[in-house]
Amino acid sequence: MQHEIYADHAATAPLRAAALAAMQPYFGADYGNPSSLHAAGARAAEAVRQARGTMAALLGCGAREVYFTSGGTEADNQALLSGAEWGAAHGRRHFVAAAFEHPAVLRTLNWLETKGFSVTRLPIPQSGILVPEAVAAALRPDTAMVSVMAVNNEIGTVQPTAEIGALCRARGVWFHTDAVQAAGQLPIDLQAWQADYLALSAHKFGGPKGVGALLARREAPLSPLLRGGSQQRGMRAGTENVPGIVGMAAALQQARRDMPQDAAAVCALRAQLIEGLSAIPGARLTGDVRRRAPGIVHFCFAGVESEPLLVLLDAAGICASAGSACSAGALEPSAVLQSMGIPPAWAAGALRLSLGIDNDKEQIEYIVQNVKRIVTDLREKTA
Amino acid sequence: MQHEIYADHAATAPLRAAALAAMQPYFGADYGNPSSLHAAGARAAEAVRQARGTMAALLGCGAREVYFTSGGTEADNQALLSGAEWGAAHGRRHFVAAAFEHPAVLRTLNWLETKGFSVTRLPIPQSGILVPEAVAAALRPDTAMVSVMAVNNEIGTVQPTAEIGALCRARGVWFHTDAVQAAGQLPIDLQAWQADYLALSAHKFGGPKGVGALLARREAPLSPLLRGGSQQRGMRAGTENVPGIVGMAAALQQARRDMPQDAAAVCALRAQLIEGLSAIPGARLTGDVRRRAPGIVHFCFAGVESEPLLVLLDAAGICASAGSACSAGALEPSAVLQSMGIPPAWAAGALRLSLGIDNDKEQIEYIVQNVKRIVTDLREKTA
Repeated sequence: MQHEIYADHAATAPLRAAALAAMQPYFGADYGNPSSLHAAGARAAEAVRQARGTMAALLGCGAREVYFTSGGTEADNQALLSGAEWGAAHGRRHFVAAAFEHPAVLRTLNWLETKGFSVTRLPIPQSGILVPEAVAAALRPDTAMVSVMAVNNEIGTVQPTAEIGALCRARGVWFHTDAVQAAGQLPIDLQAWQADYLALSAHKFGGPKGVGALLARREAPLSPLLRGGSQQRGMRAGTENVPGIVGMAAALQQARRDMPQDAAAVCALRAQLIEGLSAIPGARLTGDVRRRAPGIVHFCFAGVESEPLLVLLDAAGICASAGSACSAGALEPSAVLQSMGIPPAWAAGALRLSLGIDNDKEQIEYIVQNVKRIVTDLREKTA
Repeated sequence: MQHEIYADHAATAPLRAAALAAMQPYFGADYGNPSSLHAAGARAAEAVRQARGTMAALLGCGAREVYFTSGGTEADNQALLSGAEWGAAHGRRHFVAAAFEHPAVLRTLNWLETKGFSVTRLPIPQSGILVPEAVAAALRPDTAMVSVMAVNNEIGTVQPTAEIGALCRARGVWFHTDAVQAAGQLPIDLQAWQADYLALSAHKFGGPKGVGALLARREAPLSPLLRGGSQQRGMRAGTENVPGIVGMAAALQQARRDMPQDAAAVCALRAQLIEGLSAIPGARLTGDVRRRAPGIVHFCFAGVESEPLLVLLDAAGICASAGSACSAGALEPSAVLQSMGIPPAWAAGALRLSLGIDNDKEQIEYIVQNVKRIVTDLREKTA
């Protein structure tokens, strides 16, 4: 059997060896509960404290601004609900969000609409990059919060986070950014981005599944989403996932340290992939060619449907995606592509290939050849 | 240095070797996202599916009644919020709970009170066991939900879950039980208990931290707590913690299989510990001597304060607790003991020792000798 080529790093990335190594002691002798006052508890608490410090130093924030969650979804939910709670108390019940935010943001906003909030969803230009002026124009006196992701999860374009952060700060509006796809790909700096909230998911950058973080500026209002024990200063109840937290910090540390060379290597693979796929007739790269995360490539193929394309790629040993894994169960037309005004005929043939440091040139060449072959075959069958 | 004796299994238990072994493949080659449609995703989805089936078979419910969460706290929160959402829609805004529920229940109920719900908190008799008649007497026409834990986390007493479940079912009231301390200690059966919701936390029974489950009967109303992707049929967004879920199922399987002999062994240690500590003057076992989880022993010592007692036990290499680890940060008088009407002078000298299969007779003897020595010393100092 053909060896498997994994080109779906935006769905989840392999666990880094350094992360697993860092976790092992906490799966073994150091299994204590960080809330326990005895020696076993103290070792666990110290591990969490160190991980928190590591994360803070790598993310441009203070240790007290790092809250550990079960993942990016929980972090997004908590940020938005904190903004909503503050907004309800201050008569500001309006949210602004990019129309192509992750479902963890969009579906929470949909739900807030049923609770008396209003939401402006900003359409996305063909570049896949929101212009800060569009955000500025959408602000109202009753706007509580702006939510714009740092890197789009389907097409990979990088958003002007720092500019949006600056204008929100100037206008007195809270700014949340879902940085789930940015982490490990780009430097993240809460302070430089002038973000008030920032969501992370460990498994997207080589940490374990089931853990993430919400960064929340000291000045930003924060409400608990999970209520119970007094962990994390009452802002996130539940025994800390000690191995997960330690593994996440180790993964982020390695990702950040190796970022210059890893990004260069992955960008070279990306260029090779974009060049190869662009040569296929009726192929169109989605979004700006340069301002994108190193690993994420998204194409639409005219006259092809994503599902058979993915099935045949899978049969050739290539793991790819039509868009987000979070909505992969049902292959509906992508809401991200709709938000960009991409015609349904093109959007139907969407393909996301997301690369990582475990990919190489030969794999890219294999992917290009197979996409070309399968796209051609599928078109012939339907012709 | 004296070897560490861990007698705080109710705070967290060592990870079972079988659980870690089951997790390893999903930290390695099988790192896929269960929502991905390709081969790597399918392997992860199959692992989650199997774990769900294992859990369901062990817990007396259907596979579609198992929802994976980040732990017991999230499960408790989701159960109560589901009851609240249903109650709000049906004009039934009253909850009944045991006064000594876990903070994950009590603090969620406190918060619901600020949102127009009312809560009856049932005082606990000296036995530490709620009588079903007290629950029945508290029901009102507008009662939406009853929440009574299966085993109390501080004193270890077993509650008459099946009787409470039966009366709730007969009266048309939803019944939630926090079974976090019961799992791995007693057989759990959602159907036999006639429970509508049941919360579990993996790390209490030898699974990993950061994962748990909410069982929710097919007939019971369920609302998502985390919104986003369509995982778990839209009821719990976020990429599934595949290794955590697999590890939890493996731990529960082993715990359930070994329960007869493990419970017998731990009960023998518990009897030895109770006998030894009871011989200390001014020592009082909290709650019924027999109807308690195999591992949990709770005493109050007159004329002693918990904090120095724990510090000196820790210095002797003994990991113990005054009560719940979830509130261990601040050693306030235990709300559990207050709910039982235990006088503050006794409650101040609380000690919880919770045992597991890794403990042995010599350790119990060592614990008894040291508690006796330290209690005597502390009393002499304050005399």
